[in-house]
Amino acid sequence: MTSVAVVGAGMMGTALCYPLADAGHGVRLVGTHLDEVWVSAMKRERIHPKLGVPLPDGVQPYGVSELERALHGVDIVAIGVSSAGVRWAAQQVGPLLRPSTPVISVTKGLEHATPGVLRVLPDVFHDALPPELHGQVHPAAIGGPCIAGELARRVPTAVVFTGRDAPTLAMLAKAFSTSYYHVRTSTDIIGVEVCAALKNAYAMAVGIGAGVHERAGLEPGPVAHHNYESAIFAQACVEMTRLVAALGGRIDQVPNLAGAGDLLVTCSGGRSSRLGKLLGLGVPFNEARARMAGDTLESADIVRVVGDALPHMVARGLLPDGAMPLMRHLHEVIVQGAPVDVPFQRFFASD
Amino acid sequence: MTSVAVVGAGMMGTALCYPLADAGHGVRLVGTHLDEVWVSAMKRERIHPKLGVPLPDGVQPYGVSELERALHGVDIVAIGVSSAGVRWAAQQVGPLLRPSTPVISVTKGLEHATPGVLRVLPDVFHDALPPELHGQVHPAAIGGPCIAGELARRVPTAVVFTGRDAPTLAMLAKAFSTSYYHVRTSTDIIGVEVCAALKNAYAMAVGIGAGVHERAGLEPGPVAHHNYESAIFAQACVEMTRLVAALGGRIDQVPNLAGAGDLLVTCSGGRSSRLGKLLGLGVPFNEARARMAGDTLESADIVRVVGDALPHMVARGLLPDGAMPLMRHLHEVIVQGAPVDVPFQRFFASD
Repeated sequence: MTSVAVVGAGMMGTALCYPLADAGHGVRLVGTHLDEVWVSAMKRERIHPKLGVPLPDGVQPYGVSELERALHGVDIVAIGVSSAGVRWAAQQVGPLLRPSTPVISVTKGLEHATPGVLRVLPDVFHDALPPELHGQVHPAAIGGPCIAGELARRVPTAVVFTGRDAPTLAMLAKAFSTSYYHVRTSTDIIGVEVCAALKNAYAMAVGIGAGVHERAGLEPGPVAHHNYESAIFAQACVEMTRLVAALGGRIDQVPNLAGAGDLLVTCSGGRSSRLGKLLGLGVPFNEARARMAGDTLESADIVRVVGDALPHMVARGLLPDGAMPLMRHLHEVIVQGAPVDVPFQRFFASD
Repeated sequence: MTSVAVVGAGMMGTALCYPLADAGHGVRLVGTHLDEVWVSAMKRERIHPKLGVPLPDGVQPYGVSELERALHGVDIVAIGVSSAGVRWAAQQVGPLLRPSTPVISVTKGLEHATPGVLRVLPDVFHDALPPELHGQVHPAAIGGPCIAGELARRVPTAVVFTGRDAPTLAMLAKAFSTSYYHVRTSTDIIGVEVCAALKNAYAMAVGIGAGVHERAGLEPGPVAHHNYESAIFAQACVEMTRLVAALGGRIDQVPNLAGAGDLLVTCSGGRSSRLGKLLGLGVPFNEARARMAGDTLESADIVRVVGDALPHMVARGLLPDGAMPLMRHLHEVIVQGAPVDVPFQRFFASD
């Protein structure tokens, strides 16, 4: 039996335990300091309160103080922390890893530390590992459409595992695959991770349509603002393609699991959609953020990161000016508090 | 003032009259023999009963017997007939056209007359025109996400006009554009039209998820079968890309208006979605078709056409075997009455 540690006991980290346990592995689910309440609940009742599905028998919950014991002797480590926790995870988990241990993460995001340079999180994680592990551990990541609550309910799900080391990916794919969790692999870490990061921003943008519709006093239904939403969805695919290409990834990730697939699932009613709807209703970003207090707004975070990087990328010749008018408008809305006024006239190109 | 005739007074033909009238053109809306009831209603009450939005002042409805008078002296002809009516339209409208008249159609579909040869409908229309117009009329078509009822309500909408003659496209785009109808152009008629045709089939496939979810006794909501639906959506994008490439179109139409954009809008609750849901509920196709009597099922039609063509295309070396497992399964469901069992294990590829 393979032994797997999952670090991060939020919804997605916990959800990953279901296919792992169903595939016959022993799973140690370790909360971070932010997850103590979930870990206590799971130790007591064997159910994550926000998932609402009983933990499989093979899953053992651990508190953050038990991290070292939980990671002892494991064959695989999965990381389910938020993007803000990537360095923490590398620093806490790194010293407990053997050089050969495969590590895979569900964390989404991009880092903009050097002006005009966007980095994918597996690279950030790698560089934050103890130096003796550099080049020894090849961090992998998961892209594709996956709502945690559905994975825990064993809804058929297809994802893509990405990383720079093909044998590691093949081993991870074999370990995680079940009859309902379909894993494909790609070494195109830039393409997959850029799509995975952008989808929250663009799902928020699609969500604006529902707010604009409601603001006009209209009911949801088959005739609503779907033309508006779908034009934004299409422009999102165009801008994803442009940014993936500018960063050296493969653009065929966009009409695929990591791009359009994950964007669609993210449009089905989570935090990013709700924030977009508030903006579409005319609520300024600061007020929307206040109304959603307690929610992590990955969508606003990634708009800030990418929108900050864009002018520098244009200045460096990586992207033409005007290549990402939707992202630029989202940045005005989030950072400058501008009202939503989606610039359809600047979208798409004639040939 | 430009004078435009729209032939076909169904929902989409009628909806096209709104931007045309708002752009200041005189619009003559001519019903086919199938549209007599709509034309009578519009002559009487100036409202299309299925659209529910008053006709703009500049629109004049005509019955099929008035076709010749309606087309007399017009500068542009738009065609809004069903795919079954393309030859009828060419034969009826053709003799009334001047060689220079721009013609644009909203009809979606592909024709499979020669085994393994799929043709786009503007080409079918062209060849059915009187011989003296061959090479003189360059039929154009409209792709991209557009629900008729939303266009008539002036919801912001973005579309792509395609055809083989760039000057004709530029003239048409200028004529149709308004503050809410955003028109881009592309001479890649294969890419746009193949996406436009396939989207009904794949929207039906995405709709299966809602049926599978309901069949399991579960309520719709943010946690449902969205992972399942989004995996199908992503695979749809992959298969669209493969078929567009095989037919010589540009694959960048897929992560764009004609592909993902139009697929998304078609998933928002029309006939294709409803048929998919019935199939997901376990209703065999023949029974589902009976329950939807009176509805044109473009989704089933295109599955039949493309599914019939696939083995011939494989035999001719145009596509590898197994390139379109979702379409092949839909064909089994529609043509052979097979139960739905979406073959996720055959979807996507690792690299």
